[in-house]
Amino acid sequence: MPKKKATAKRASKSPASPLLFADTSKSADQLYVGGFGVPDAFISFKKGRKWFAVLNQLEFARGLKESKFDEILSLEEWLEMSREKFQRAKVGYPEVIATLASVFEISRFKVPAEFPSSLAFKLVELGFELDVCDGTLFPNREVKSEEELEKIREGNRCSAIGIRAAEKAIRKSVVKKGKLYLDGKVLTSERLRCLIEIACLEAGAVSADTIAAGGDQACDPHCVGSGPLRSNELIIVDVFPRVSRTGYHGDMTRTFLKGKASDAQKALVAGVFEAQQKAIKAVKTGVNGRDVHGQVLETFAKLGYETTRDENGAKGFFHGTGHGLGLEVHEAPRVSIASNKLKRNAVVTIEPGLYYPGLGGCRIEDVVAVRDEGAELLSDLHYRWQLK
Amino acid sequence: MPKKKATAKRASKSPASPLLFADTSKSADQLYVGGFGVPDAFISFKKGRKWFAVLNQLEFARGLKESKFDEILSLEEWLEMSREKFQRAKVGYPEVIATLASVFEISRFKVPAEFPSSLAFKLVELGFELDVCDGTLFPNREVKSEEELEKIREGNRCSAIGIRAAEKAIRKSVVKKGKLYLDGKVLTSERLRCLIEIACLEAGAVSADTIAAGGDQACDPHCVGSGPLRSNELIIVDVFPRVSRTGYHGDMTRTFLKGKASDAQKALVAGVFEAQQKAIKAVKTGVNGRDVHGQVLETFAKLGYETTRDENGAKGFFHGTGHGLGLEVHEAPRVSIASNKLKRNAVVTIEPGLYYPGLGGCRIEDVVAVRDEGAELLSDLHYRWQLK
Repeated sequence: MPKKKATAKRASKSPASPLLFADTSKSADQLYVGGFGVPDAFISFKKGRKWFAVLNQLEFARGLKESKFDEILSLEEWLEMSREKFQRAKVGYPEVIATLASVFEISRFKVPAEFPSSLAFKLVELGFELDVCDGTLFPNREVKSEEELEKIREGNRCSAIGIRAAEKAIRKSVVKKGKLYLDGKVLTSERLRCLIEIACLEAGAVSADTIAAGGDQACDPHCVGSGPLRSNELIIVDVFPRVSRTGYHGDMTRTFLKGKASDAQKALVAGVFEAQQKAIKAVKTGVNGRDVHGQVLETFAKLGYETTRDENGAKGFFHGTGHGLGLEVHEAPRVSIASNKLKRNAVVTIEPGLYYPGLGGCRIEDVVAVRDEGAELLSDLHYRWQLK
Repeated sequence: MPKKKATAKRASKSPASPLLFADTSKSADQLYVGGFGVPDAFISFKKGRKWFAVLNQLEFARGLKESKFDEILSLEEWLEMSREKFQRAKVGYPEVIATLASVFEISRFKVPAEFPSSLAFKLVELGFELDVCDGTLFPNREVKSEEELEKIREGNRCSAIGIRAAEKAIRKSVVKKGKLYLDGKVLTSERLRCLIEIACLEAGAVSADTIAAGGDQACDPHCVGSGPLRSNELIIVDVFPRVSRTGYHGDMTRTFLKGKASDAQKALVAGVFEAQQKAIKAVKTGVNGRDVHGQVLETFAKLGYETTRDENGAKGFFHGTGHGLGLEVHEAPRVSIASNKLKRNAVVTIEPGLYYPGLGGCRIEDVVAVRDEGAELLSDLHYRWQLK
């Protein structure tokens, strides 16, 4: 049995000190607590009311100037102290943490689920008790402050700018032999993605892995799309940029069609829109996300859209209705069958979709804040989708 | 004592099966083995000669079409089997892994250092032996194939395109009261960064956290820069884009100056260039990266550039000479005092810099492949830096 479990049952006098070891691109917790970006993993921990970061000389001065940490410690100095404590030349992060723990009188650490195993096992070997969380170190990240809500609105303004750029390009394009051409050159998914991402950059946000997929490609909801876009096919555009200044995201999806939509395509889009609006209306503080998801399932069932699965994959509606959004594109809470009660000021996407190879895929996504009186939209863009 | 260590010493008949649980933006190992991007964490493992991925229905079909995995298993099916095996409704990833282990006859797993602690401890509780690596699951990622080298060359072509865009903007700008103006508007770090990142996007690569910092800001090597850029100040431009199609990176830095350089600035740039060229010449299969780093230290010492540190940070040269480059911007091997022998076909950056607030910062960076006959440059851009 690992020490962690054995000790979890013991009553311990000292409270566990939160501990992180990560870079800020991989750990939203690290970005959340320090408020500044560091590309290599570093130690941060809390003792009493203060958060400390241990930075090497490359990051030290910037940490003093840019970060929210209460105190910045020098990695080089603590490595030196660790060498003395352990009486050997070669020491690493486990020894530095042990030295910090001894000076700061810490015997128990609390770490997030994602805390690296290698370091965790070494700390246990060094005699520390570890409380390993099931998820983030900050479950409160799920509940946003008004300031954070504004940052997410800003993210969605960037999403909308990206989607408008796509809409404009599709509108402006002409159809030749079933393919879209913009300014004389074929409009591919790659080119449309580039136009979207440039628009986001100019608005101050980095959008990666942007989805601009048409026809059957769009029936794989995470397929980013490749090759020429075609008329009379549904084109899914899903844009989830990170605002460079704040680190917060937007996330929005619209589905377009250039040319003439068939009745089946019109019905599909109308069905997804109906499901999305019903789900948005169901959002409210204390409502279970499972029931919001249920609105989508009910709507699709009522309209006769079936979900099936075989050895090649699924058709119909086969993902969650939404997910939390903030410093991460996918974070707590989920809006799906595995959901819990939605907390006041949580932020979730509402993004039902239907996917039938042959007919095409449609997804419509907005972002809402959970409020006592219902959903507050944090994204704002029209739903016109048939582009002549 | 954690079971992992207790069992590491026992002779075990069954070889450990490599196991990953991560999304591909956080785990280069996961991207390396599967060759396709998945935004949420998933299980992959090796049994015999086959790599398996366990994907939910959202990713399943795309996994079949886009990934390099030998076999795709359905998460939903394995959740169902886990519920049967554990005789309860609520099961999660630990139980799914236990069920897989039982069917595939696996009793020991090998996981990377970054494997999530929470899952690791739960697997130990379930009776599994875990070999936790000190780093990646694939130490061989350090050694690149010719195909990977070409992908890194492509990354550096994108870097060069980004830096050329910056050079062009700085050249084209005019100076008014010490500030740069481009097309009538002040040229800020933010605006220059945007021009660089757009150029990278158009070349097929996403560049985030691009550094475009002038004056004293550039003396913090990871400060991305903000506000107006000024004449007669050194401007560091560091571009490390990820090629969207392949996931591989480029990484290149040049330092520019608009206007008239002082003798001290000229000497600084000449010193960094001399150190960089000497370090590149020292690279060769089997040479210790520490000695490559030593060339930089020697050059700076010979030229009289001192490195000092006080409570506000460091001045002089206070970072490593370089780092490995590939699917990650920072990966093995390091080129620093902590370095080991460089392996044939490893890829490293060579990027010495000098930073003195008041005078400014200069860094010059190229990327090389380690070859038996010496360094092979994988990046290609001129070193002119004084822009009139």
